[in-house]
Amino acid sequence: MSGQIVLHEYADSGNCYKIRLTLAHLGIAYARRQYDILKGETRTPDFLATVNANGRIPVLQVGERLLPESNAAIWYLAEDSPLLPDDRWGRAEVLRWMFFEQYNHEPNVATMRFWKAFVGEANWTDMQRLLAPVKMQAGEAALQLMDEHLDGRGFFVGDALSIADIALYAYTHVAADGGFDLKAWPNVMAWCEAVRLQPGHVEIGA
Amino acid sequence: MSGQIVLHEYADSGNCYKIRLTLAHLGIAYARRQYDILKGETRTPDFLATVNANGRIPVLQVGERLLPESNAAIWYLAEDSPLLPDDRWGRAEVLRWMFFEQYNHEPNVATMRFWKAFVGEANWTDMQRLLAPVKMQAGEAALQLMDEHLDGRGFFVGDALSIADIALYAYTHVAADGGFDLKAWPNVMAWCEAVRLQPGHVEIGA
Repeated sequence: MSGQIVLHEYADSGNCYKIRLTLAHLGIAYARRQYDILKGETRTPDFLATVNANGRIPVLQVGERLLPESNAAIWYLAEDSPLLPDDRWGRAEVLRWMFFEQYNHEPNVATMRFWKAFVGEANWTDMQRLLAPVKMQAGEAALQLMDEHLDGRGFFVGDALSIADIALYAYTHVAADGGFDLKAWPNVMAWCEAVRLQPGHVEIGA
Repeated sequence: MSGQIVLHEYADSGNCYKIRLTLAHLGIAYARRQYDILKGETRTPDFLATVNANGRIPVLQVGERLLPESNAAIWYLAEDSPLLPDDRWGRAEVLRWMFFEQYNHEPNVATMRFWKAFVGEANWTDMQRLLAPVKMQAGEAALQLMDEHLDGRGFFVGDALSIADIALYAYTHVAADGGFDLKAWPNVMAWCEAVRLQPGHVEIGA
């Protein structure tokens, strides 16, 4: 990697936290630039033109280059580090869980957290009221699948922390904010604790 | 890679086609095993226990090992091939577009295709009727972002076909099935034609 690293982020976002947690584990210094998504600061003409045309954070800046998508960013940072397996099948399994995270987990577990803890149920639209039970059920199914996979395993891939764990931990460990009671998934709870106890760990609020 | 390759798939699925197109470009032989998703064949107890606990296709089998998630599968196949850039930033940009595909594109463009061309509007639930305009708008936004990125570019990353193009092509070139008229996005149309004309290309129905 060449160039100073700047994280364009909203600190409470789990997608941004994934990158901070990866940077912490790798001991990489970086600067942070905050945008208030509740005030639409990632949808301004300036942000769309200069940071991310998709109007989303996080964006990882390395020198002058910009990389949207949290899971692409942590892959970039983790290449050739202990946070990625050194075998081809292992790397593919890491990606398997990272795509699962963005398709089955984040749109449900993270969205319910955002709607409940940030938007507030009193402010929900009719569409949000209709979708909430669907997203709760899909989020529970994602947590159930994780729990079954973690039966007898310490981490998602192989026997060490990888960015698959980091990607899934970001919104799982705060799933209670979205109304998901992790007590229903004991393997997920034990894995959360194992991730939290890793050397180099930082909290989402750090 | 070691072991015979078997693709567990539903032939009309764009997610499965991504893998077939990647295998064709790489000249890798494989077997195909079909499951009719309209008949629930990926949700049977046997499928859930022996192929994918997430109840989805495609699953890439290599020898005895199984890999769900289409984009993880094409990454596995493409490592160290011309379908992935040989520089770290380029690989991260490929993943950026692959995560965009699964988060912003597939849940809208592919879902509208499935609802319109496979389920049939006459059979939609009330929820599908409410969500359809939301998904059309989000799908159009994804196609618009692609069109802007492709302005002045031949491919999504660098100047050669990569699995980012393959991932995005799968559902974009059949977007009309979902009601998206690609004439609104001329750069996307030109890029579709360029992908189709690549040596080694195979059609979704092949």
